[in-house]
Amino acid sequence: MGEKFFTSKEAAKTVGCSLRQLQYWREKEVVVPTIQGSGTGRSIYYSQSDVVRLAIMEYLLSVGLSFSEASRGLKELVEADLNYADRKSKKRWMFCWDEKKRSLVLEEFDREKAIASLDQGQAVIPIGLDAIHQMLKNDLLA
Amino acid sequence: MGEKFFTSKEAAKTVGCSLRQLQYWREKEVVVPTIQGSGTGRSIYYSQSDVVRLAIMEYLLSVGLSFSEASRGLKELVEADLNYADRKSKKRWMFCWDEKKRSLVLEEFDREKAIASLDQGQAVIPIGLDAIHQMLKNDLLA
Repeated sequence: MGEKFFTSKEAAKTVGCSLRQLQYWREKEVVVPTIQGSGTGRSIYYSQSDVVRLAIMEYLLSVGLSFSEASRGLKELVEADLNYADRKSKKRWMFCWDEKKRSLVLEEFDREKAIASLDQGQAVIPIGLDAIHQMLKNDLLA
Repeated sequence: MGEKFFTSKEAAKTVGCSLRQLQYWREKEVVVPTIQGSGTGRSIYYSQSDVVRLAIMEYLLSVGLSFSEASRGLKELVEADLNYADRKSKKRWMFCWDEKKRSLVLEEFDREKAIASLDQGQAVIPIGLDAIHQMLKNDLLA
């Protein structure tokens, strides 16, 4: 079977971001492609897990988060959820504003807790891995 | 009675942001102080409404929004709510992710709608003017 790998161009198209963004994320070590030779663009290949991470990053930026907040969020998520790239994972996470820490904190999605946050006037940013996998499905399976 | 005005230093302290941020926001015309002479720092004074706008900007950045998203949000809010700076305003707004527009959209806070957004895995960022006025209360009244 083997694993499917993606060129930068393919990964950008799949995820819906620009080549420039991918390059920036490589430089900033937000998402470093699994295969990255020392040569030119040709030697860069993203694994399926890499593409999932790219999609999460793109999602976090799309909801308006800053680059630093989005990359911190992605890092936390990947560390907290070893199965983030598993296509069958339907896990939902959320970033909730934590008044004490004065920052967004990653937690497993909990509807009651999310509603309580809203009632306190605090931001909630859900991250549904199911939705992300669904979006990538055609490209990753093909 | 007269209106109270704030120097940059006072405004920064009240809102909890840096002088550098205030300067950047002036340059980018996110929050331009009501009194701004052509001289040096001494001729800059923020009105009470200016300070409320600064506080909203600071809040939007603190929940992790990017500079461009936060300044767009502030602009929308100020245009939508003529009474934003009224101390008695307890109005609550929210930014909800709009799938069609693929961006955060400002709406009056509606608990049902906010919960429905969460259930669809979409981000909700409440903006409670009451909380913002509460935070500023001591400094603005003094």
